Amino acid sequence: MKGWISKDNILIVGLGLMGGSYARGLKRLGYRIEAIDTRRESIDYALQNGIIDEGFCYPDETAIRKADVIIFALYPELLKSWIEEQQHLFKYGLIITDVTGVKSCIVYDIQNILRSDVEFIASHPMAGREVYGVENSDDGIFRGANFIVAPTEKNTETAIEWCCGLGKILGFRKISVLTPEEHDDMIGFVSQLTHVIAVSLMTCNDNTNLVDYTGDSFRDLTRIASINEDMWSELFLLNKKYLLHHMDAFIFEMSSFRDFLAADDRESLKEKMRLSTERHSYFNKK
Amino acid sequence: MKGWISKDNILIVGLGLMGGSYARGLKRLGYRIEAIDTRRESIDYALQNGIIDEGFCYPDETAIRKADVIIFALYPELLKSWIEEQQHLFKYGLIITDVTGVKSCIVYDIQNILRSDVEFIASHPMAGREVYGVENSDDGIFRGANFIVAPTEKNTETAIEWCCGLGKILGFRKISVLTPEEHDDMIGFVSQLTHVIAVSLMTCNDNTNLVDYTGDSFRDLTRIASINEDMWSELFLLNKKYLLHHMDAFIFEMSSFRDFLAADDRESLKEKMRLSTERHSYFNKK
Repeated sequence: MKGWISKDNILIVGLGLMGGSYARGLKRLGYRIEAIDTRRESIDYALQNGIIDEGFCYPDETAIRKADVIIFALYPELLKSWIEEQQHLFKYGLIITDVTGVKSCIVYDIQNILRSDVEFIASHPMAGREVYGVENSDDGIFRGANFIVAPTEKNTETAIEWCCGLGKILGFRKISVLTPEEHDDMIGFVSQLTHVIAVSLMTCNDNTNLVDYTGDSFRDLTRIASINEDMWSELFLLNKKYLLHHMDAFIFEMSSFRDFLAADDRESLKEKMRLSTERHSYFNKK
Repeated sequence: MKGWISKDNILIVGLGLMGGSYARGLKRLGYRIEAIDTRRESIDYALQNGIIDEGFCYPDETAIRKADVIIFALYPELLKSWIEEQQHLFKYGLIITDVTGVKSCIVYDIQNILRSDVEFIASHPMAGREVYGVENSDDGIFRGANFIVAPTEKNTETAIEWCCGLGKILGFRKISVLTPEEHDDMIGFVSQLTHVIAVSLMTCNDNTNLVDYTGDSFRDLTRIASINEDMWSELFLLNKKYLLHHMDAFIFEMSSFRDFLAADDRESLKEKMRLSTERHSYFNKK
């Protein structure tokens, strides 16, 4: 496996917002980038705008054979079948990573089906935009964002280090190593639960008559309420165990706040608010 | 009652963040501003910084007697008793307004106890900061914000217009007239429910170990989680009827999302997300 100093051939499979952003960032660093995406317009756009060196809207055999690194930026359910079908073409010693927002439900499966000379090291760039497609890609979204590497016992130290290096050269603010389970638990809370809340706030009543009265707090809580339903329903279902746990804890907490309010229990309401302020100040220190 | 052209004597009772911001804005427009606040440091600070012309840390008889307008920026529960105790000093034809975040629970009570020659026209500047005190006051917070006038059947057209004019000269983006009940229903949803959600997200588990992994969505949803527990517990309890209604609708909605997730009902999850995206686009148009 080559290090980051040599100019590897990198193949990106799935050239949407995230694949395109990886392509831009890595090409800027001097890597040769090829890409595969079923959408012809994405490949054409990326070629015309110098985002990739070569591209295909089918699994091109030569492109797959010569790749030293493959980065998968596909929907999670597509990922497994793509690898299963194409891995006979993989170069000996290939290293694979992904960008998937859920980990435990895919990492073990992929490592189990993968050829023994190829290593899959899972990672999750915690970055995004509310728009889609390579046309909106931008490697600037990585600055200030977190990059999580999620190895299993099957991964080598070399691959973990390589993957941390990938996050680093792409410009992520912080690189962390978590187990797939730690990742899924964390992401269920900080990202998935917050999206469910924003959606529920939008759908819990026909609030459009209130459009004239919304202030900063409502805007803040619903900024992520425009949501790609195909991607997020898949991510939610794949992380069901952790997300349900966090949703239940949140619903329980709101219900308890509700009961204190119904009972005019001012002291208990204030106690919750003091704890909230105290925890929030801890987050603000960072 | 004087119009906004003459230079009225304005008395501000309660010189915190909001009272101080009113004082700054109105003084800039040439009005003479006096203020009463029990906190000596607030009065001293405001005098030293030219925010008010004169100030007292007790209900000064002369200041009250000469006021043409009194603006109350007190906690709601203090407001009623203050008026009850001091109204014998009010000038004939005095006009009163407030800044209180709840309306129906106070407006009728105050109008019922008030001298018949004095008019109370309720209003709510939907602006604020996460910091407190006259030291942090800033009339810039009114720009882009909503100003709600909440008259009852007892109010005159003149007073309603006068109060709309107050919002206008203070620089609010949009001035609306709502009944006290419409106001409380709206504020229960766009402001109070969002604060309960932010608090519950902070208190539903000991999340401080996640401080390294929070991204934009978590930060957006918890920006208002530092909360003045005395003020907000009072506002929540005073608006209990409407807030409970909105909390119940929200908890019901999240629970239904939860059940779809538990049942692997992808289509229903997507339906919720599509509705959310559609409604959010409506809010974004404004």
